[in-house]
Amino acid sequence: MRAGAHRAGPEPLLYERVAAEVGDLIERGTYRTGDRIPSIRDLARQRRVSVNTVMEAYAQLENRRVIEARPQSGYYVACRLEEPAPAPDPRAARGALAATAVTLGREPLEVMRNLADPALLPLGRGAPNLALLPAERLARMLASEARRFRDESVSYAGRKGLKRLRTQIARRSLDAGCRLGPDDLVVTSGCVEAVTLALQATCKPGDTVAVGTPVYYTFLNSIQWLGLKVIEIPSSARDGMSLSVLDYALRHHPIHACLVISNFNNPLGSVMSDGHKEELVRLLARRDVPLVEDDVYGDLGFGPHRPLSAQAFDEKGLVLHCSSFSKTLAPGYRVGWIAPGRFRERVERQKALFNIASASPTQLAVAEFLTSGGYDRHLRALRRTYARQVAEARAAVGRWFPPGTRVTRPEGGFALWIELPPEVDAFAVYEEALGRGIGVTPGSLFTTGDGFRNCLRICVAVWSERIAQAVRTVGAIAGAVAGEARPRARGARAALAPAP
Amino acid sequence: MRAGAHRAGPEPLLYERVAAEVGDLIERGTYRTGDRIPSIRDLARQRRVSVNTVMEAYAQLENRRVIEARPQSGYYVACRLEEPAPAPDPRAARGALAATAVTLGREPLEVMRNLADPALLPLGRGAPNLALLPAERLARMLASEARRFRDESVSYAGRKGLKRLRTQIARRSLDAGCRLGPDDLVVTSGCVEAVTLALQATCKPGDTVAVGTPVYYTFLNSIQWLGLKVIEIPSSARDGMSLSVLDYALRHHPIHACLVISNFNNPLGSVMSDGHKEELVRLLARRDVPLVEDDVYGDLGFGPHRPLSAQAFDEKGLVLHCSSFSKTLAPGYRVGWIAPGRFRERVERQKALFNIASASPTQLAVAEFLTSGGYDRHLRALRRTYARQVAEARAAVGRWFPPGTRVTRPEGGFALWIELPPEVDAFAVYEEALGRGIGVTPGSLFTTGDGFRNCLRICVAVWSERIAQAVRTVGAIAGAVAGEARPRARGARAALAPAP
Repeated sequence: MRAGAHRAGPEPLLYERVAAEVGDLIERGTYRTGDRIPSIRDLARQRRVSVNTVMEAYAQLENRRVIEARPQSGYYVACRLEEPAPAPDPRAARGALAATAVTLGREPLEVMRNLADPALLPLGRGAPNLALLPAERLARMLASEARRFRDESVSYAGRKGLKRLRTQIARRSLDAGCRLGPDDLVVTSGCVEAVTLALQATCKPGDTVAVGTPVYYTFLNSIQWLGLKVIEIPSSARDGMSLSVLDYALRHHPIHACLVISNFNNPLGSVMSDGHKEELVRLLARRDVPLVEDDVYGDLGFGPHRPLSAQAFDEKGLVLHCSSFSKTLAPGYRVGWIAPGRFRERVERQKALFNIASASPTQLAVAEFLTSGGYDRHLRALRRTYARQVAEARAAVGRWFPPGTRVTRPEGGFALWIELPPEVDAFAVYEEALGRGIGVTPGSLFTTGDGFRNCLRICVAVWSERIAQAVRTVGAIAGAVAGEARPRARGARAALAPAP
Repeated sequence: MRAGAHRAGPEPLLYERVAAEVGDLIERGTYRTGDRIPSIRDLARQRRVSVNTVMEAYAQLENRRVIEARPQSGYYVACRLEEPAPAPDPRAARGALAATAVTLGREPLEVMRNLADPALLPLGRGAPNLALLPAERLARMLASEARRFRDESVSYAGRKGLKRLRTQIARRSLDAGCRLGPDDLVVTSGCVEAVTLALQATCKPGDTVAVGTPVYYTFLNSIQWLGLKVIEIPSSARDGMSLSVLDYALRHHPIHACLVISNFNNPLGSVMSDGHKEELVRLLARRDVPLVEDDVYGDLGFGPHRPLSAQAFDEKGLVLHCSSFSKTLAPGYRVGWIAPGRFRERVERQKALFNIASASPTQLAVAEFLTSGGYDRHLRALRRTYARQVAEARAAVGRWFPPGTRVTRPEGGFALWIELPPEVDAFAVYEEALGRGIGVTPGSLFTTGDGFRNCLRICVAVWSERIAQAVRTVGAIAGAVAGEARPRARGARAALAPAP
């Protein structure tokens, strides 16, 4: 019933006039970014036009991204910030490629430590919203299952983990296009453990891992810990890692594994299209390079269908597919998994060597939660909430951040990637915000190089009036830092200008 | 009231006569190894002598190790097998020292895999007896605590783990002579994870770890996985690692860490005396070599007092003390800990990098179990049961194994180390037993060298008439293998003898 669907009745000029009127109200600030505008029915009544006319008008405004629909809520003034520019020109990027040993200095470690402070307003924290998790139902299942499976609850869950759980995971992963049997899976203590096991199984110290940049900083930590090197492949918020640069890197550098967050990437929010995923798997398979896929956000999309996993395109057992229930059920339960493809033996053994198995009672409870139904209903509610919060957060950024700011438009998850104007030092913004009790993550954490210095990541799993105000504060800080930077930048340019 | 306590009354010759009579009954097989002999009261009545006389007689027989008292049960014919010989002569041992890269071949891995088969009679498995674990009470606490601490139960337990749990562990560790604050501890997913983290924090690939030999094979696995080398220090069943050989090794080889199971060692059952522990800590501290102490069996002693941990003697923060509740409460809960001394920062960080934290609900349940009391009572019952089972298992070995067999006399835990006569191939015994559905661990698993080929470890956490019969079967197999070996050995000697 949107713009595309022309039908008889409404006079074109009329709906265009209504659209222009609404646009004008927005222009003049009657409705500001993030505000809800009148419903179709209300506006039709107020302007004494037909419902169809308003529908056409709103469709036109939506197409022009002036307003946006939020499911089951209405129409809102859209964030008019541009989205981040695509990744840099592949040709330029190729020249900059280099395998780098990761040696995180004090600064990033201190930032991570600071941001873990529970007293901060949590824009800097990637954890899910605890209030949205089914803690009570899980607690009941902890007890019922530990009673029902007395011996299983106190003993080791076996090399691969609890079979009932693996069966449920295998069934669910059909949604992501995977065709897995329970024995293709190894239960891990969360997705981070799965990724670490995957990197250990595919690389030895000194080897090089290709990652999309900006890269989730925990990966950099793990890569450093494992003594690996990293090669950063530019990625765009639209469709992730640049495959042409990856292809070049594969041809000119020894690369032993590739690590991606395929869906609703952290921090970019990008989703690789099916074609992109297939191409990625094919590109790597041609050189027998394993792909470590972190798909922990895959169930958190705002659209009607779950995007596929890259694993769905694997034909050679080269994809090590990693995920967990930490974003959807309970991070504290530490229940994750890996489908390690042809590296299964090695992954199983290393898991056993590190901690024998993951805790049994939480595996039992999650297995029961999945078996007894209600997970999909829970996910729908979660996705709806995160979709709304992301939209509200984008609107707040649009309203309060300095001109020239760009912000991603993720279609899943709860992270926003904010590019401030190039001259703004995002680290200064982070520091100033920290001083005011607000955690935001500076972009410099997401690379081993010196990029993203004007970028911030904010996470909006938790959202409230107070946090919306915090976004406003961060926007004001960014504005102030920008204001200071601009004359300096001009001054710098002047100083560099040749003497007249 | 035992041998030492002389008092007026019984005529010396009378009690000696009673002792000789009982000894004779045992000699003639009326009472065999492991059988219960008449109680003091019964025998006094039967022989028409005073209770004191029988007490003196039994004390004499106990001193001569002909019989043994089992608490709250009575007197039994003792296992008359000798205990294993002390570790080889230090001078000979020194020459044999070498730092070796661990490269476990197919054989040990296959053995470990075979022994994990739950269908086997479990003499080959080091897990505790599930029936003795307080599963029901823990299940109740899983539920009550997850309800009481709703948000904590679903969220990460923090870098160090749940504070309530750490406080309880710190209090309990006073028993082991440790003076720790909650913040000196990091919760891990079991003791194996703690040991791995300790080795990672103290060594880099290529470094050498000194271990007591025979060495728990999981350690060899971990050491291989971490790319470390191992130097094996001979150990005796009496007091563990030979410190004179360790001293020599420290002076002549680069050693980066030392790893011991200080109390009720697996497999030897040895307990280092306090003096020995102090000397070990001092020896290592002199060269700033960290000591990784696995004290997971420390609470499972049969005596009235818990032995101290080596950590109790640490003055330089060089001891990394590791343990867990896997042997006493629930292996499947994966709740362990490490007191990493001066390596705390590194251990904390590596734990966070590997799997962020251990599962929260099981930490909550164990913390509540410790807080609400009853753990000591539970431990007393556990220790009593294991003491009885170890005694019965020793008796069975004494009765059914071939002459020349030696067996340890552990004072805690549930492992027995059996030295068969030197010519017996224990691997053949393992294989034959496996064929009959019985798991026993061949000694060759406990070294990277070629020692212990005539040794077996059996674990008796689970004990029943059927398992006692299995010990009899293994003894018969060992006897048959010995019978085959003897002529062969003689033949080999004959072949080697110079021609007449």
